[in-house]
Amino acid sequence: MLAFRLTAAGATALQDVPVPEPGPGEVLVRVGAAGACHSDLHMIDATAPRHVPLTLGHEIAGWVEALGPGVTGFAVHEPVGVYGVLGCGQCAECLRGRENACRSGFGGIGLTRDGGMAEFVVVPARCLMPLGGLDVVRAAPIADAGLTPYHAIAMHRCALQAGSTCVVLGVGGLGHLAVQILRATTAATVIAADIAPDALALAKRLGAHAVVDTEDPDAAVAEIREHAGAADVVFDFVGLSATLDIARRVVATGGHLSLVGLGGGTLPVSPGGWTLPFEVRITLPFWGTRAEFREVLALAARGDLTTEIQPFDLADVATAYDRLRAGAITGRAVVVPGGARA
Amino acid sequence: MLAFRLTAAGATALQDVPVPEPGPGEVLVRVGAAGACHSDLHMIDATAPRHVPLTLGHEIAGWVEALGPGVTGFAVHEPVGVYGVLGCGQCAECLRGRENACRSGFGGIGLTRDGGMAEFVVVPARCLMPLGGLDVVRAAPIADAGLTPYHAIAMHRCALQAGSTCVVLGVGGLGHLAVQILRATTAATVIAADIAPDALALAKRLGAHAVVDTEDPDAAVAEIREHAGAADVVFDFVGLSATLDIARRVVATGGHLSLVGLGGGTLPVSPGGWTLPFEVRITLPFWGTRAEFREVLALAARGDLTTEIQPFDLADVATAYDRLRAGAITGRAVVVPGGARA
Amino acid sequence: MLAFRLTAAGATALQDVPVPEPGPGEVLVRVGAAGACHSDLHMIDATAPRHVPLTLGHEIAGWVEALGPGVTGFAVHEPVGVYGVLGCGQCAECLRGRENACRSGFGGIGLTRDGGMAEFVVVPARCLMPLGGLDVVRAAPIADAGLTPYHAIAMHRCALQAGSTCVVLGVGGLGHLAVQILRATTAATVIAADIAPDALALAKRLGAHAVVDTEDPDAAVAEIREHAGAADVVFDFVGLSATLDIARRVVATGGHLSLVGLGGGTLPVSPGGWTLPFEVRITLPFWGTRAEFREVLALAARGDLTTEIQPFDLADVATAYDRLRAGAITGRAVVVPGGARA
Amino acid sequence: MLAFRLTAAGATALQDVPVPEPGPGEVLVRVGAAGACHSDLHMIDATAPRHVPLTLGHEIAGWVEALGPGVTGFAVHEPVGVYGVLGCGQCAECLRGRENACRSGFGGIGLTRDGGMAEFVVVPARCLMPLGGLDVVRAAPIADAGLTPYHAIAMHRCALQAGSTCVVLGVGGLGHLAVQILRATTAATVIAADIAPDALALAKRLGAHAVVDTEDPDAAVAEIREHAGAADVVFDFVGLSATLDIARRVVATGGHLSLVGLGGGTLPVSPGGWTLPFEVRITLPFWGTRAEFREVLALAARGDLTTEIQPFDLADVATAYDRLRAGAITGRAVVVPGGARA
Repeated sequence: MLAFRLTAAGATALQDVPVPEPGPGEVLVRVGAAGACHSDLHMIDATAPRHVPLTLGHEIAGWVEALGPGVTGFAVHEPVGVYGVLGCGQCAECLRGRENACRSGFGGIGLTRDGGMAEFVVVPARCLMPLGGLDVVRAAPIADAGLTPYHAIAMHRCALQAGSTCVVLGVGGLGHLAVQILRATTAATVIAADIAPDALALAKRLGAHAVVDTEDPDAAVAEIREHAGAADVVFDFVGLSATLDIARRVVATGGHLSLVGLGGGTLPVSPGGWTLPFEVRITLPFWGTRAEFREVLALAARGDLTTEIQPFDLADVATAYDRLRAGAITGRAVVVPGGARA
Repeated sequence: MLAFRLTAAGATALQDVPVPEPGPGEVLVRVGAAGACHSDLHMIDATAPRHVPLTLGHEIAGWVEALGPGVTGFAVHEPVGVYGVLGCGQCAECLRGRENACRSGFGGIGLTRDGGMAEFVVVPARCLMPLGGLDVVRAAPIADAGLTPYHAIAMHRCALQAGSTCVVLGVGGLGHLAVQILRATTAATVIAADIAPDALALAKRLGAHAVVDTEDPDAAVAEIREHAGAADVVFDFVGLSATLDIARRVVATGGHLSLVGLGGGTLPVSPGGWTLPFEVRITLPFWGTRAEFREVLALAARGDLTTEIQPFDLADVATAYDRLRAGAITGRAVVVPGGARA
Repeated sequence: MLAFRLTAAGATALQDVPVPEPGPGEVLVRVGAAGACHSDLHMIDATAPRHVPLTLGHEIAGWVEALGPGVTGFAVHEPVGVYGVLGCGQCAECLRGRENACRSGFGGIGLTRDGGMAEFVVVPARCLMPLGGLDVVRAAPIADAGLTPYHAIAMHRCALQAGSTCVVLGVGGLGHLAVQILRATTAATVIAADIAPDALALAKRLGAHAVVDTEDPDAAVAEIREHAGAADVVFDFVGLSATLDIARRVVATGGHLSLVGLGGGTLPVSPGGWTLPFEVRITLPFWGTRAEFREVLALAARGDLTTEIQPFDLADVATAYDRLRAGAITGRAVVVPGGARA
Repeated sequence: MLAFRLTAAGATALQDVPVPEPGPGEVLVRVGAAGACHSDLHMIDATAPRHVPLTLGHEIAGWVEALGPGVTGFAVHEPVGVYGVLGCGQCAECLRGRENACRSGFGGIGLTRDGGMAEFVVVPARCLMPLGGLDVVRAAPIADAGLTPYHAIAMHRCALQAGSTCVVLGVGGLGHLAVQILRATTAATVIAADIAPDALALAKRLGAHAVVDTEDPDAAVAEIREHAGAADVVFDFVGLSATLDIARRVVATGGHLSLVGLGGGTLPVSPGGWTLPFEVRITLPFWGTRAEFREVLALAARGDLTTEIQPFDLADVATAYDRLRAGAITGRAVVVPGGARA
């Protein structure tokens, strides 16, 4: 089968490899679609990749093709989404259903073992989630671009009551889903902020109560404060020092900051009300839990989430990553091994 | 009556002032004891104090002396602790019983209105809390040195289960009570860390399961990790960049950081697992809630908290602050208007 | 002024009484509107009423008319909703902002002191809540018919995630608001159940995903189970033994039961999976908290809640109660002292 | 190997059966100890047992003997406790780590598949929990008699703050561990109540702050109310209508009832403050979660739990059940296949 693999630092190739065999407790999945994510670019750019060769792709949906020994509860050809996080299953966090905070270190499909940029992928059976009628191409981005903001929002749900206001910084792949998840699952007032007019128009269309241009940070802070007084919750899906600084300046006393975006910026945190208001809570969310994956899939299956999709053939996966790197993807680039026009 | 007042930037005086009158909804309290706190020194040192003249003292216990119009539910001579936080009572946080995160800005007895370093103090009736048999001199430090760590711990109680490990950085006025509160209210394993051998001996005596010398930060990090693997919760009661860095290096994936100490240090926070593990939650606690004040007083009344007290006459309050500034106070300096030997 | 008063067991009268004076900490409110509630009928029917004479009316909105001594933070003529619960302010529950669970016993405006079926009412200042642009007549029913389901839902919010299903039994005064609150604040699938076709049509119009006729309980249980498998949360706004039995039969293992309606029925609860599934949680909600009142008012002010209102002049209040008793009120009967046609 | 089996309704036998083989994802465990539980008697007494023949025993600790295909992370001879609950792993509850509330119906080792009253038992690998130095004979009862109260307490931890009071009804196998878990993990005041003077003496010795004789229910209610006013949380480990009635009469407004004991009694629940105070929350706990099993084992390993053990040889298991049925077991009867005197 064809697989798009990271073969060495900075090197990728579309290779012909054997179809893998599912071991005990594993399942062979025929890939229906796999999303291309910025973190794949981070992996390609890493100077000393720890897992090579490795088939990329951690946002996967498809159909059960074959069950390994001991697996029950799934039917061949059943459509499934793939939960990409691989926890140890034994630590305090895994036992609580929080594999995404596994104490034994990071593991993931397409990250530390072969992923979904291929015709087939083998995954542990516990990673499979029924799709409930959701189309596999629509489902693939939910596995990361949907799950990550869903989890970030869930961590602060207690502060997202009626009458509260939240700010979404960055209306890109994750942010445009965050706006919709906030509208569908909370009664908070949603202010979306971005530097790009198109992104703001998209946010407005997807239900943001107000949008704010962050081109001029001081003006943006003033405008957000005019809407909200101060924000109960700020989600930063960008993570540049500039956006972290806006977050810091608009969050309320007792408010919440959710730092999701991997922009490489730094937020200086000092106790005592000097850099941030008193009683602020800050989280550094990572991906999401299996339970949350089930929940966000249900939300998408009910039609509450619209994902912008740009499909590519498996043969064109390098092009997809090139465009992603060039900032030329609107919404999510999704590789469709069965054919982008199918 | 005598009152110790901040009269201008850097200037304090023990002055003779009229006994104040309680207005509607207020109560006149005869001060039994008032703790001297480091934040009083911050106020004295401020270059542009906003509230002068002002009687200092925000850690107060005493007896009801007179009730203002409309006040019911308290008897004259009843012993009471004084909750020092003054919220607006109308914002989202105050309505949830979290006056310490009041959205309308900071207010406090002895901070923005006259406090308890005097023979009498007038406070809103809602600030009074029955002492349940606790001695007033023992009760006074509970109002801040007890309440602040109690609140910090309460914010992370969900992570302080049996089998979890927490670290207390700094076994001073607040930290030595934190160790006891952790032992009395959770089943977590408690590691206390400090630079001073006396503080470590005190922590051990008060129930810490292990103590770690932080003189050499690298060795301290290694020793904590040997005990705990990684810490579920780290409480920093110091707040220097050095302690914040230890906190950062020992906290577990999915762990919690509570930054309480006002040492002026900075913790650089970057999303993406670069400066801190994934899924970490950071809080910046401030003082505590009225409900928590009731709870920590109950804990003290039951005998579960031992507070080191160094008593001073009201005439000697300047000495108390001098010694506090010199680091010559063990435990808490408490001013006793009725006489330190009484 | 005119006031509709309970004068003795079973006896009411529209009487001319002096306009009350606000004491310290109190406010005189000009009543804009006061809702007529079934619990008023319970009070009228009580064989030994404990508080007579008493002006009825605990669902009140109006305008500040005069401030008592010591009250600040409100302007004369400011429109306000009135929180009807009167807690002691000192017990563990009140301190946590849960006056509706006050340990010192039950108190309420229009229940244990004079209420709002009059031209004016005096209330403690802490009961006032700004309306944020919401019309006073629309606001009045929010104080009970809106707040009670909002609170019931808030108690079980953790179980109302995307992908979960809840059942609303009884689409009357409270239930029709419950459906809307569930849609606006959660992503749960909402099944509304009632015996009356009109109520089901209303539920459908207000956003219920499915409606179920409970005329035949066995068929209703089967139909709910067909939709939901088993229900994550069941809200019973009726409280007859028949509806409690439906609730019992459709709730999931680990599911939640919220018993709100005062229909006089009894649910037999036995541990061990015999009458109810394992791990079920049952709550007996009462009214709501001040924080929740603020939240549900914000929801209504944003236009997310439609309340069916049937207005009456103050002179016609007896007629309003007669129609309520006869089941001839659609939505909520609201007495408008300034004139129902105003 | 020898196994004590339920062979038909009411019939048990110690039989020689083949040592089972672990399948994919399973582990063969050499049984170190297995507790005898009242629910085993319920199974023996069932008129139509659904799983026969079946080896009894769901409270198991032992040593890993052999790993099935695909199992990693455990070493042969490693001492382990066995989590007895078998969830589907795919439903909303299982995904949240709450297999004990599995939506797909009840499953358990020694309950729906062969258990630990034998020399060996095969269990899914995910059921194994390292013992952390805890002796296997001490560990066995923790798997149910320890886990069940630990879970019940965890469900109400939010109400078990300093200054709160809880009541433990029934100081038997579960209740005597509940008292210790409450003392070790909360600061609540613990009142233990039982009909047997020995049980009350044991409770006192294990840390109960007060004990109450329930021989005369009215006197018991009065005595509890004298201590507590009203109880924040009541745990009923008996479940007779008499104890449920005491629970009902002592619980506070806004208080919590945890109904654990399978005594067959019924609590009549009516909304509206008629049979129970307003705002009461009732739970029907079942066993516990895997995360909680890890936590309660950690508590026992640290020495915070003392379990009364009465050991029996595997050859004498019928005697153990006879004595259990006769009420002649103090603490927990534990079958030790390697020999009770070992």
